[in-house]
Order: sequence, then C-alpha cells, then structure tokens
Amino acid sequence: MDPHVKHHCGIFGIYGHPDAARLTSLGLHALQHRGEESSGIGTGDNKHVHVHTGMGHVADVFMEPEVLDRLPGHLAIGHNRYSTTGSDTLSNSQPFLAECRDGYIAVAHNGNLTNTSQLRSQMQEDGAIFQTTTDSELILHLIARSKEEHIVDRVIDALQYIQGAYCFALCTEDKLLAVRDPHGFRPLCLGQLGDSWIIASESCALDIISARYIRDIEPGELVVIDANGLRTFSPFEVQRHAFCIFEYIYFSRPDSIIFGDTVDKTRRKLGKQLAIEHPADADIVIPVPDSSNTAAMGYADQSGIKLEIGLIRNHYVGRTFITPSQDTRTTMVRLKYNPVRGVLKGKRVVVVEDSIVRGTTLRYLVRMLREAGAHKVHIRVSCPPIISPCYYGIDFQTENELIANEKNIAQIREHLGVDSLSYLSLSGMLSVAPNTTNQYCTACFTRNYPIPIETEVNKLILER
Amino acid sequence: MDPHVKHHCGIFGIYGHPDAARLTSLGLHALQHRGEESSGIGTGDNKHVHVHTGMGHVADVFMEPEVLDRLPGHLAIGHNRYSTTGSDTLSNSQPFLAECRDGYIAVAHNGNLTNTSQLRSQMQEDGAIFQTTTDSELILHLIARSKEEHIVDRVIDALQYIQGAYCFALCTEDKLLAVRDPHGFRPLCLGQLGDSWIIASESCALDIISARYIRDIEPGELVVIDANGLRTFSPFEVQRHAFCIFEYIYFSRPDSIIFGDTVDKTRRKLGKQLAIEHPADADIVIPVPDSSNTAAMGYADQSGIKLEIGLIRNHYVGRTFITPSQDTRTTMVRLKYNPVRGVLKGKRVVVVEDSIVRGTTLRYLVRMLREAGAHKVHIRVSCPPIISPCYYGIDFQTENELIANEKNIAQIREHLGVDSLSYLSLSGMLSVAPNTTNQYCTACFTRNYPIPIETEVNKLILER
Amino acid sequence: MDPHVKHHCGIFGIYGHPDAARLTSLGLHALQHRGEESSGIGTGDNKHVHVHTGMGHVADVFMEPEVLDRLPGHLAIGHNRYSTTGSDTLSNSQPFLAECRDGYIAVAHNGNLTNTSQLRSQMQEDGAIFQTTTDSELILHLIARSKEEHIVDRVIDALQYIQGAYCFALCTEDKLLAVRDPHGFRPLCLGQLGDSWIIASESCALDIISARYIRDIEPGELVVIDANGLRTFSPFEVQRHAFCIFEYIYFSRPDSIIFGDTVDKTRRKLGKQLAIEHPADADIVIPVPDSSNTAAMGYADQSGIKLEIGLIRNHYVGRTFITPSQDTRTTMVRLKYNPVRGVLKGKRVVVVEDSIVRGTTLRYLVRMLREAGAHKVHIRVSCPPIISPCYYGIDFQTENELIANEKNIAQIREHLGVDSLSYLSLSGMLSVAPNTTNQYCTACFTRNYPIPIETEVNKLILER
Amino acid sequence: MDPHVKHHCGIFGIYGHPDAARLTSLGLHALQHRGEESSGIGTGDNKHVHVHTGMGHVADVFMEPEVLDRLPGHLAIGHNRYSTTGSDTLSNSQPFLAECRDGYIAVAHNGNLTNTSQLRSQMQEDGAIFQTTTDSELILHLIARSKEEHIVDRVIDALQYIQGAYCFALCTEDKLLAVRDPHGFRPLCLGQLGDSWIIASESCALDIISARYIRDIEPGELVVIDANGLRTFSPFEVQRHAFCIFEYIYFSRPDSIIFGDTVDKTRRKLGKQLAIEHPADADIVIPVPDSSNTAAMGYADQSGIKLEIGLIRNHYVGRTFITPSQDTRTTMVRLKYNPVRGVLKGKRVVVVEDSIVRGTTLRYLVRMLREAGAHKVHIRVSCPPIISPCYYGIDFQTENELIANEKNIAQIREHLGVDSLSYLSLSGMLSVAPNTTNQYCTACFTRNYPIPIETEVNKLILER
Repeated sequence: MDPHVKHHCGIFGIYGHPDAARLTSLGLHALQHRGEESSGIGTGDNKHVHVHTGMGHVADVFMEPEVLDRLPGHLAIGHNRYSTTGSDTLSNSQPFLAECRDGYIAVAHNGNLTNTSQLRSQMQEDGAIFQTTTDSELILHLIARSKEEHIVDRVIDALQYIQGAYCFALCTEDKLLAVRDPHGFRPLCLGQLGDSWIIASESCALDIISARYIRDIEPGELVVIDANGLRTFSPFEVQRHAFCIFEYIYFSRPDSIIFGDTVDKTRRKLGKQLAIEHPADADIVIPVPDSSNTAAMGYADQSGIKLEIGLIRNHYVGRTFITPSQDTRTTMVRLKYNPVRGVLKGKRVVVVEDSIVRGTTLRYLVRMLREAGAHKVHIRVSCPPIISPCYYGIDFQTENELIANEKNIAQIREHLGVDSLSYLSLSGMLSVAPNTTNQYCTACFTRNYPIPIETEVNKLILER
Repeated sequence: MDPHVKHHCGIFGIYGHPDAARLTSLGLHALQHRGEESSGIGTGDNKHVHVHTGMGHVADVFMEPEVLDRLPGHLAIGHNRYSTTGSDTLSNSQPFLAECRDGYIAVAHNGNLTNTSQLRSQMQEDGAIFQTTTDSELILHLIARSKEEHIVDRVIDALQYIQGAYCFALCTEDKLLAVRDPHGFRPLCLGQLGDSWIIASESCALDIISARYIRDIEPGELVVIDANGLRTFSPFEVQRHAFCIFEYIYFSRPDSIIFGDTVDKTRRKLGKQLAIEHPADADIVIPVPDSSNTAAMGYADQSGIKLEIGLIRNHYVGRTFITPSQDTRTTMVRLKYNPVRGVLKGKRVVVVEDSIVRGTTLRYLVRMLREAGAHKVHIRVSCPPIISPCYYGIDFQTENELIANEKNIAQIREHLGVDSLSYLSLSGMLSVAPNTTNQYCTACFTRNYPIPIETEVNKLILER
Repeated sequence: MDPHVKHHCGIFGIYGHPDAARLTSLGLHALQHRGEESSGIGTGDNKHVHVHTGMGHVADVFMEPEVLDRLPGHLAIGHNRYSTTGSDTLSNSQPFLAECRDGYIAVAHNGNLTNTSQLRSQMQEDGAIFQTTTDSELILHLIARSKEEHIVDRVIDALQYIQGAYCFALCTEDKLLAVRDPHGFRPLCLGQLGDSWIIASESCALDIISARYIRDIEPGELVVIDANGLRTFSPFEVQRHAFCIFEYIYFSRPDSIIFGDTVDKTRRKLGKQLAIEHPADADIVIPVPDSSNTAAMGYADQSGIKLEIGLIRNHYVGRTFITPSQDTRTTMVRLKYNPVRGVLKGKRVVVVEDSIVRGTTLRYLVRMLREAGAHKVHIRVSCPPIISPCYYGIDFQTENELIANEKNIAQIREHLGVDSLSYLSLSGMLSVAPNTTNQYCTACFTRNYPIPIETEVNKLILER
Repeated sequence: MDPHVKHHCGIFGIYGHPDAARLTSLGLHALQHRGEESSGIGTGDNKHVHVHTGMGHVADVFMEPEVLDRLPGHLAIGHNRYSTTGSDTLSNSQPFLAECRDGYIAVAHNGNLTNTSQLRSQMQEDGAIFQTTTDSELILHLIARSKEEHIVDRVIDALQYIQGAYCFALCTEDKLLAVRDPHGFRPLCLGQLGDSWIIASESCALDIISARYIRDIEPGELVVIDANGLRTFSPFEVQRHAFCIFEYIYFSRPDSIIFGDTVDKTRRKLGKQLAIEHPADADIVIPVPDSSNTAAMGYADQSGIKLEIGLIRNHYVGRTFITPSQDTRTTMVRLKYNPVRGVLKGKRVVVVEDSIVRGTTLRYLVRMLREAGAHKVHIRVSCPPIISPCYYGIDFQTENELIANEKNIAQIREHLGVDSLSYLSLSGMLSVAPNTTNQYCTACFTRNYPIPIETEVNKLILER
C-alpha cells in the first residue's frame, strides 16, 4: 500500500473497570495503525469527565504515569487520529469535550459524515459556533439541541440528522454510548473482560487487554452501558449494508476479526484468488512488508511458487530525514526498505502488493529490486484498480492523483517499469470475501456510492 | 503586594500594519505583568483568522520565528492570561477562536462578567455547547445568536446581555473591534503608529512599539477598525464610572497612563498622603522592590526620611525551587529577597508596602529585616485594609483568607511582628487619585459593589 | 531473541563527500538495530572537527536540519550506541572527542576491549584522567601518549597495547581511519560511492546511500583515507580468526553482507539444518517476527511444513507503557505481539526462534499461542544453548541469568511449557556457516574464549 | 552597565549537611547574576562523586526533584557559568568530573588562568588529552600528574604550576577543597550553618541558606574540609593583593560582603565621590535600573538633587525576541527599559551609570529619555573609562570594541548624544574603596596588569 493513503481513525471504549484509562491506552496502542498523528482519552468517574489529548503515538502521549493518573474513572473512551488535512485554524483533537445542558460529554469518531456542511450551515444560521471541523463536535451540537429529556433519547434524536459512515463512542460522567451507522461502513466490535464491557474498532484491541470478543456492534445499533448494564437500541430504518472492503484489503490488522470474520483468512484468500486469476511464470513470490505479507502467502500457496523475503523493512523510521537533494524520493524509499540481494539475484520475482494508489513508492521499489539483480519483476495487486475517492472515512487522494484514474493498466505497467502487472477482479475479490456480495461498499473501484455525497463536501475534498 | 494575588489579564490589538503579529508580541511583552501563565495571538489577513496560544511567558510562546510566521495578516489581537483557577477539564486558552455564521472570529478578554452562569444556563437550555469557561466564549455565543445582519450590530446586540467588568478585543479576517464596559472598571487605551491603530490595556504597550498614546477608550465605547478606518459607537446607557483603584495602587506599570493620568504620579501621591496621615519616627524608608518603589519614594519625599534600598530582589526566580523541608516558606522568601545588612543594621526602618492580602510574605520579610539588624520595623501601607473579594477581574483570595477580614489592625501588627502598622485611609486614597471620587470602584475596601453579583458566581469563586 | 540482550554498537565512516554528515546519518539509520539508545556524528572540514551526540534514535538526534548544518566537512564518522550499563557518573557519548598534541580527534568504537582496567590503572598511575569508561577514550589516550610523530604511526603504536574485540573509526580534521582487530570479531566493510570511500559495520549501511560494497576490512587491517587516497596497513601479527557467529544468528540484518557472505543465506541454512537435525510432527511453522523470519523460512522449506504468520508484531512500541499491576509481563508481551487465532486454532505449531537467553518472553509467547488455540507448541532454536557471557561486545546476561546455564533442556522445555524443545547442534551450526569452522568465536556456546579475559573485567561485568 | 559584558562565574561549596545538593542549588540561585548560561552541582557521599550539569538558570537545571535526588551526599560543590565564548567543539560544563589515580574528582572554577596555553601544550606533548577548554580540566590534569601521595599535597603541587586569577572548589567522595589565588583577584568567603562549612563567591549565597558569614578565604589560602574538620594551608609565596575593583563597581550583588566590606556601602560611596567630582546642574537623578541604583542613590544624597525612577526595567526578558527589522536595536532596548514620561518631562536629568563598555545600549537609552521629554541629559559614570581588556575572568570586549579606547570623552559624549558626560577619577575611585589603594587590580582602567599575560592567550582572546 502506498504511504500516501492516510489511515483513518480508531476508537475504543470501556465501562466498569477501575483502571479504565490505562486499559484504553493499551487498546489504542493495538489500534495505532488506524491513526498515528494524535491520540486522546476521556474518562468518567460518576462526577466529572476528564480528557487528555496529544500529538504523536499513544505511547508518547500517555508515557508519563501522571497523565493517566489525571484520568480517573471506571469508564473511558479513546481515539487515534490521522493527520488533520483540513484547516489548520481549529484544533481537531479528539475526544471532543464540551459542556451542554446534560453536563460534560466527550465524543470520539471514526468515519466521515456526508452532510456536515449542510448541517453546520443550518446550525450556524441558528447561532451555533464551531471550534473544530470534526464530526464529533457536530454530533455534540445535535445532541445539545435535541428537545428530548434523557441523554439516550437525545442521542437517538441527533442521529436522525446525520448521514454517512460513522462509529461514535460517547461518554458522560456515568455512561458509555457507542453507535455504528446503519450501513455499517466501519467495523466496531463488542467485548468483555470480567464484568467490564469494551467496544473497539477492531478485535485486536480486545486481545491486548485479554478481553473476549463477543460480537460485532450491528449496523444501525446503539449500545448504552451504565450502572444498569448494557442496553441495545435500533434507532434507524434498516439499510443495505455497505462494509468497507478495504478494511479487509489493507486497513485492519490481520489478527483482527471484523465484519464477522478474521482479516487474515480473507486477506489470504484474496492472494489465492489473485494467483488463480493472474498466474506468473516466476521463481519467487515476495511481499511488500508488512502490509501484503498475508496476501503474498496466499499467492505463494496457490501458485506453488516459493515465498521469499526479498525486501527488509526498517521499522525505525518515524520521522523522515531531511533530504533536500534531488534523490529525495529514492532516499525515502531506501530509508524504509532494503532489498535482499542474495534472494533476488537472477530471479524472476512476483511482487504481491495489496493496492496501488499513486504508485510512486512502488515505482522506486521496482527500480531497487532490479538494481539488486531481479531478472523479471511481475506485480500482482490483491484488489481492483482504485479509480475514485472515498467519502466514507479513508483519506485517498483526489481523483487526479489516483494512477488508475489517469492511466490504463498497460500505461501503469510501463510507468512502474515492470514486466507484467495484474489486478484482482472485482467479482473475484467479492467472491472470496465473507458475507454476501452486496453487503460491501466498493465505491473506490466502481464509483458506485451507497450514500449520495454533498456537492460542497465533494468540492472541499477535491480542493485539498 | 502579596504574591498570592493572581494578576488578571492584558489585551492588545493592532490594525493596519504588515507586521501585526510581531508588534502584538512586543505589546504583550510590555503587558506581561498582567498575566504570566499563558499567551496568545490571533491575526486576520483578509481571508483567514489565525491563532496561536501557549503556556508560559510571551517571549517563550513566540520565541520561534516560525510561530510568528504562521500568523500572517495586517490586524491582530493578543492576550496574556493568569493561571486557570477553574476546572482543568476545559482548555481556557485565549484568544478564543470559533467559526460561526459570520466566519471565524477570535476574542480576547480582560475582566470578569458577573452574570455568566445565568447566561450559560439559558444558552445550554437552548442547545449551546461550551468548550471553555471563559467570558470570551460566552460573548462569541451571544454574537453568533444575534439576529442582526452585520457583525457590528451583532456585537452591539450581544453586549446588551452581559454585565460586569470587561474589555474585549475581537478580530475577524478583516476587522478589529474593541469595547470597554460602561463602568470602565478596566483600563483600555487607543494609540497610533503611522497609519496603524492600536488598542492596549496599558499605554506601556504603546511605548514599546514607539506608538503614540491618543486617548483612553471611553467607558461604554465600542471601537471598530477596518478598511474604512476607525468608527466609534456608544451602545450603552451611561453608567456611573467605577475605575478600579487597584490599577493605580498595584497592578498597572508605573510608566503607564490609565484612567487619564500616569500611574507613577498617582502612586507617588499615595505615598505622600500616607506620610501625611501616618508619619513614623524612623531613620530610613525602604520599599519592597519593585512593586512599592514609587510609593516609598513618595513617602520619603514627604516625610524627609531618607530612602534606602534595604532589600535586594532576585529577579531570576521563575519557577520555585522544590523545598520539602519545614523551612519552606522562609526559603521561598529568601529566594526572592535579600536584606542589605549595611543599610539596615541598627536602623529604625519604615517599610512601605503597596497592599496586604494574606500577609504571609510580609511576615517573613519582617523577620528577615530584624535578623539583618533592623532596630525598629514600621509598616506603612499605601491603601486601606482589603476586606472583601473582587468580582471584577482581580483574583483576590476568598474572604476568609484576607487577613484584614479576620483580624483588626492591632492583631495584624502583632501577626507581622512589627513595631507599628498603618494603612492609608479611604478618603486619603481617593483624595489623591485623579478623576472625581465617585468614579472609582472601592469594593475590596468597602464591600460597596457597583454591580450586583450572581449568587452562583459568588459561590463558585468562594468554593475554589 | 530475548529482548534482554542489549544490542551492541554500529559504526560508520565516509571520506570525500560534500554531504558527509547527512550520508552518515542515513548510514546510522540503517544500522539502528545495532544500538538504539544514543547516536552521534563527528565531521572534519580540513580545519576543525565537529561533533554532535544525543540520546535516542538517529532520526530523533539528527531530526532538526540545523544539527546537520553544524556538522560541515567532507569526512565523517558516526556511532549508534546501546544503553550505558556502567556507571552513571561519566557520560559515555560517542564519538568521543578530545584535543591532544595532534589536534582534535574523534573516535567511535564497536566491540569490547579485554585489558582496559589494566591499561586505565597504568595510565592513571602516570597522571592520566578519564572522563568516560569507553574504549574510545582509552584508545585516544594511547594515541596521545605515543612517541611517534605521524598520526598513522601513533595509531599503530597505540593498537599494540590493546586486546579484545574492536572496530574503531577515527577522524581528524582531514583524515579518516578505520581498524578491525586481528581476530576479526566484529564485521566491518568497505564501500564506495563515486569517489567517496565508506566504512560500515554492515553493508546495509552502504545500500541506503546507494554505495557499492567493495570488500570486508580484513581482520588486523588498518585503513587510512585522506587527500592522498586510501592506504592500507597490517600492523598486527596474524591471529586465528574469531568471527562472531552470533552476527549471523541474530544481530546483523538479513540484507547485509558480513564475513564475506550474505546474512540471509546463512540464516536460512541455519533453519534448514535445524529441520534436518530436529524435525517435528506439526501442521505449521511460524517465526517470532521479525528476528527469526529467515530461519523459519529455511525450516519450512526443508521440512515441507507450511510457513504461516501466527504472530503479528506491533512495531509501534518504542517506549514501554507503564504497567504497575501484577500482569505487567504478560501485558508487555501483548504490547509487542498478537496471535492470529485463525492461523493457530487447533494446529500443531513449530515456533522457530533464533536463540534463547533468559526465556522470559518466549514463555509468555507460548502461553499466548495456547490461549489462541494452538494444539501443540514445538520450539526449535537455530543455535545451540547459550551458556556463557560474551566479553567481546555483546551484552548478554551474567551467567546465572542465562537459562541454559541453570537448566538442562528438559527443564527449559518444562519452564517454557512446550511440547518439545530442540536446539541446533554446534557442529550443525558451524557446518552451514560460511568460512571454515575454526574461523568463528563460539565462546557463548562453549566457554572457549579466543582471548583471555581480565579478572577485573570479569568481575566488573559480573557485578553489574 | 552594558549588557555586552558577559558575567563571569560563581562557585559554592558545602561540607557536612545531609541536604548538601539542595543547599548548593539555593546558593547558586543567589549567585545567578555571576553566570546565567549553565549550572552544575557535584556531590560526594563518601563512596562516589555525582555530577549533574545543564544549560540555563539554576532553577531550570535543578527544577525536577529527581535531579537533586540523584545527587546524594553530605558535601557538594556548585558552579554557575557564563556563555562559552570559546570553541563550540568541546563541552565546557562544570563542575568538571574525571577519574584519576585518586578516584573521582570534581572541580569548579571562577576566574581565568594566564598560562594555560603553555601548560596545555606541555601536557599534550606529554600525551595528555583535553576534553574541554576549562581551567578546571587543566588543574585536574596537574593534580593527576603530581607525584605526591596525598590528595592535599597533590593539589598544593598542582597549584605551583598555575598563574592568574582563580578560585577553585574541588570535591572528592569525602573531601571539599577551596583555594583562592595569592593575588586574591576574585572574592571567596567562608561561612557556617550549624556544623556545616560553606564557601561561596559572595556572601549573599550564605544569606539565602541562613548561614553565617565567618570571614574571607585569604588570598593564597587553601582550605581543606573533611571528617577531620577544617584545615587551612598557605602554599604560596605572599604576593601583592590585586582585588578586582570591578566587583565593587558592578559585578557583586549590593547585599554581599566581599574583600572585607559590604558592596552596598562602597558602591554608594562611589556615587557620592562622583557627585563631588562631577556635580551637575539638574532637576533629578535617575539610575539605570537595577545595576546603578546604589551609586545613583549616593550621587543624589551627596548632590542634594532628587532621586527619581525615570526608567522602568522589564524583568520578563529572558530570551530576546526575534527582531529582523532595521529597528532591532531600539526594540531590544525598549524590551528591557521603558521611560516614565511623567517623571522625565521637561526635566534636566542626571543619569548615573556604573560603567560604559561599548556604549550602545546607553546611546539608545539616551534617545529614549529625550523622546520622553527630558530637557537635558547628563551622564555620570561611577568608574573611570575602561580602556583595556581583563585577562583575569571578566569577559570584556576586545580593545577595539571598548569605546573609551577608541574615542576621547568629548567624542563619547557626542556619540551618546548627551549634554555632558563625566567619569569618576581613578584616584577618587580608589580613595573610597575599602582596603588600601595598592590592593586593587585596576588594569582595565590603566593597562597596569598585575600578572604578565601569555602572548598566546592574548591572541586567542583578541581573535574571538
């Protein structure tokens, strides 16, 4: 996967544990891959809501023990965020915390609402002020404006106004709420640790605290957890499901269960199907570590071509080196990957890649493989060509930066400088995914958007 | 002055200078004594509003040149803040920035509103959410809710709802607004530098950028500065003035002009009047540097007793040393002051102090003077006993921490361990202040509050 | 590999490039795995020697462009260091810089001298003072004390006094020197980039700057590079070689060439030999990522058992979370690894591990595998049992912390809680390593130390 | 005093207190004015020597309680340092710590040796290496090289080799040593707190910890304090004294006792003598706060002209603002000082200044006074013109930067733009100083150097 794709966000929540903030920090650590730029935790201790957010990885933001000490309480929500691509003017840290009629509420969000600009305008006309551009602040405004009396009814009321892809975790001083949109774009699961309830974007966040995976939060389900235990609500009309297939292809961790099945299993099947559709006359199969390891293993299994480690990934990169000279791009790829000459020399190599967005890094990787002695380089991609942006929470490029939108496959092959290039077919991809075919969102491959997109939002995203 | 009195805030604004943010940082530096805990600047460049805030002194927050570079624009507002004494939950950084119907607006505030809890409740009932406890956020909510069309009218509309002591500076992407409450509790002046207009809490902020002092912003005056130049509005009914006499006694810098006259001149007169009312049979007069330097000079002039420097102040203290042992308090006073034995030995000493709040530091200072050989120690205070809290922007202690509220003068004298103790009389103080007597607020000496105080606010402040 | 083994150090040097410091920072980045605690660079610009060192990863220490700007020059040396386990009293940052008769000299070192305490005592008797406990300072003292006139002769003179395992890189304002001990314990290679010469602990540091691997610096070779080009010296009597076999087993990166052959190839052969010696009745082979990936691949190839990814490593860990509760150890392992249930469930699993030092982490990993459903767990270790400390640069535990020194294989098997446990044999290991058998140091497996160890040093190391 | 004069250093030592490091941090705080750039403490706990140094003020370096916790022991030495003006190459932090035959020794130094380059060359010829350019490292080399057996004899031996102005504090794990050069250039005093002995550059460091001033350490005296109590040695031939008169004029704090008398008293006499020699037809006398406060008070007393506070100093400046525009210099002066218009307007003003080095700041101050309405400005300087550099520890400019070396008084007067300018006479100055006239060093006024200066040192200093 191209490093140009910004990850989206990860959320976590726990109710009923004396060490709620610490367990949340661990859960967020397991979800670090869903957002590396900032991290935050909000807790409730029956009297107050406490929040701490900071830039950087979870382990950095919550490194000092004093920070967790300042987050007392038996319930907590947490958030990992990808880089703010919007205006620098407002701080978009999450959980978003504010005081309203109901007291203090903190909110964390994963996904992307599609009617925000319309809602913001309406509310601003009505006198509202906005301090961030997050969907979390928006939902909080809607909750605050609800005429219902009880907080659960107010949340349900607020949810009627919003459209798009979302999972929200909310906390008050004594309640944890979690909701997943009726299409179910983003994953959200429910777990248990002793008497404590946990919600998390992926089940790997349950594993790290030794919690049990219970089930997925259903599309359109609202879960409320407080002193009375867990209650579930279905405040929406039923909609066709639109699970993000990209979670299986790239985003989620292979050790997670999402949309009812393990990522590892599906990702491996994608590799196998790729081998069936697009065999290659080659000596070895190599992944681009670590994102396509599993798919490459599937490809190797199916094809009978030997799997090798032909690229070593340097995991120390965190902040990029300053490289003002002309060979910047090459250097950046070299900082991250190094070819294993002994493996590659004289070999016909199949590189299994999970997806291609801009293709820039892959182009340099190919050049590196050739310099290291690869005789032939064949690229096999475990998803179809990406031709259209995502408006549901994945920060793909604008259309004209997507290489498959600009070039046909022959042109991409030439651009990458490879001997052959093949993509997995749409039908092949869907045939191996769990659930039925029409339960997925495939808009980025088909332009077939499950929810209509606001023109303004479109423009905004395109202008970036 | 006791170090227990938290300073209040300082504000600054400039319109029409290409280097607006840098000049604002200099202005805030000159106003540093009005708030040492955090600092912030907001600018407008005709297209956007930019804000940067940080903890610490102005020179620290805006040390890196990149920070000012990220604040482009020809207009700016700035704010120095004293420590947040309220809840830690919400961040109270200023200028407060938000987006509303009118676009982005930044607000900075000096003073204290007296009907905030009522207004917050009303607005929360109505669906508003609050991210801070600042009066700046409150005024912005009121502006956002106004049904008027033009921003100036909306501000005027909003001002009708608030009561208390305030000076606000607001900026949009192309306008600078400044307003002073109709009682005129806090000082605010207008200056000019070439074609640029400047507003500032004290005139010393004009001097540092070589701007000319033009006049005070009048009590109840709203000033609007934009591409059309400066316009002035009087949106309030006329009220009796209630200038904070404490600005002359302690807060403002001696080199400033406030309330129409120089602080130095008035402060010296307070010292002279003190000498007339309470002479002392002594060899030398010494100030507690630097806050009572000017008053001590007045006392010495009038009394004919020689002025000496009997205490050296160590200006290096910034963060206090960790002193867990029992002599903590003594050590902290010693860290800040050192007696000059050669000056004090065998002498009958008059110590002129500007005011006494808790008296703790003064008590240790007296002990130190005696150890250094002072034969007699007489305290003369250049204002009356402080018996009541301030609800208009000065963070005095709660009533039961004010020594003059608990003890009579004889008891205080005993507590301090001095040979004599005298305070300036109320009438004496007012007789030497500029303006007419009834133009001042003297509530902290008299409990005579010009504006009624909300019960809730009272309670809140008392509970701290 | 157990995380208890501290890595040793990595060195780098370049001569003849206008961007010497920047290229050195990239080389050190590729060598980051050899020392994560601190990093430093020294440069020469024909007039001066400049040094900058700092705590943390290379990318952190040299993140600010100004830092590299302050390191001008056409020649540079660099150093990555593992944590100082010695006294906190003296700062052990490297490169070590000092001024002596020859002007400024900077020195960086990888390895461990075995007669330091004797040399230090002698020199201290003679009036020398020491500011660090590094071997780099010691060698500089010896150079400074040499009676020879020319710097090269002085270095040669100094080298006669020292014993042990070492690679030194030295720089003056206009010369780069590099030397490898006559036994050749630690790897050191020579590369070229255009007209520039490079020396590096491993060849992966050449790759990152697109330099060509030329050859190893020979055991006992001193290389001097200056305006006159590269000269080579052989200042020692020939000794039997004693290449550290652990570099092949664990330390060096698989994409490096050391001791004349690629690490990847040898490491894979170790896995194959392990499969020949110790087959297992199992369904899948899994590595402990990433250190035993290559050996596991060899085992799978040879055995015909399918390779799977049964453990996902979380690469975000950098600083450990604070985990004061009783399950600390489990949590720490969970922070780093997560089992893939779908892969493991019901399977008989061979875990290939590169080596076992204390066995603590492995024990928790085994427990985790079982909880994830593994039916049988067989450990296969790609080297013999480690029974004795290393005095030549690898910071193993003291003897009584080495599990194989305390327990026999049956006891270790029981301790780990596995169904079977087997180690590669010494002869098997040596049979697949490049070079002839007697060219290796195997002391940690055999207690057969190529160079006698100072009693004092022993004691010092044991006391730690 | 011009801000261009870098302060020199301050030292402190204590023996026999369980809280030695903390008391040392307080003592260094009181000596902060003698060196603002870095600070360090070394302690001995009978077993080890511990050192911590850092950049910045004492309160910053020792802010974290953990730092002092890592400095156990009943004896300590401390050091405040001015900015390193020498090479950036070597770190010059003090106390300098190293291990030699005698174990660990830490050294701190105030002053400047005059034969260092010769000693360094000799020792380098002999094989020594230098890690700093400090005199502290040099003395430690000499101690290490002494053939004497006992540490006290070794120190005495080492002292025979050095010339110049110095006060050294040394500590081993169980001994505190302090020595003052036979000319006595720099002040050093002895104090007592209970059973603990203290040495300090100035007595104000005794006051802050409530210790008693006992006496000065005599010129040429070596004091050794250990479990046997305090012993005193006189290892030098008697020399004519050469007390630095500048300590009275500017450097030392007015509340200190140095060279046997209080600074305040002498500084005031300098002001009086200045008034006798150079009266002025003026309305007010003002100091340049705070350095000339005392002298101005003396001038006012003697002349009968009224003392006023005409300039307010802003004590918040720490780090200078970035001021790239052309009016940089003016801004920097405005950042530090603000005129009090009400005091100055229409007045004939005598500005008492303690000394003039380059005159740059004073020139801007004068301009500022005139803009504030001063009718006449007369400068009176409480010492003679400075015409020559100091080689004994005060970092004056090189000769051609000293304005009095380039211009005569009439020219300086013109340069400053004042109505009159007068300096105190040499004889007048010496007549009011305590001790006899020939006990002072007046080299900066007379070029009459008590100790000959190395040519190399001269050159080095001039080249800076």
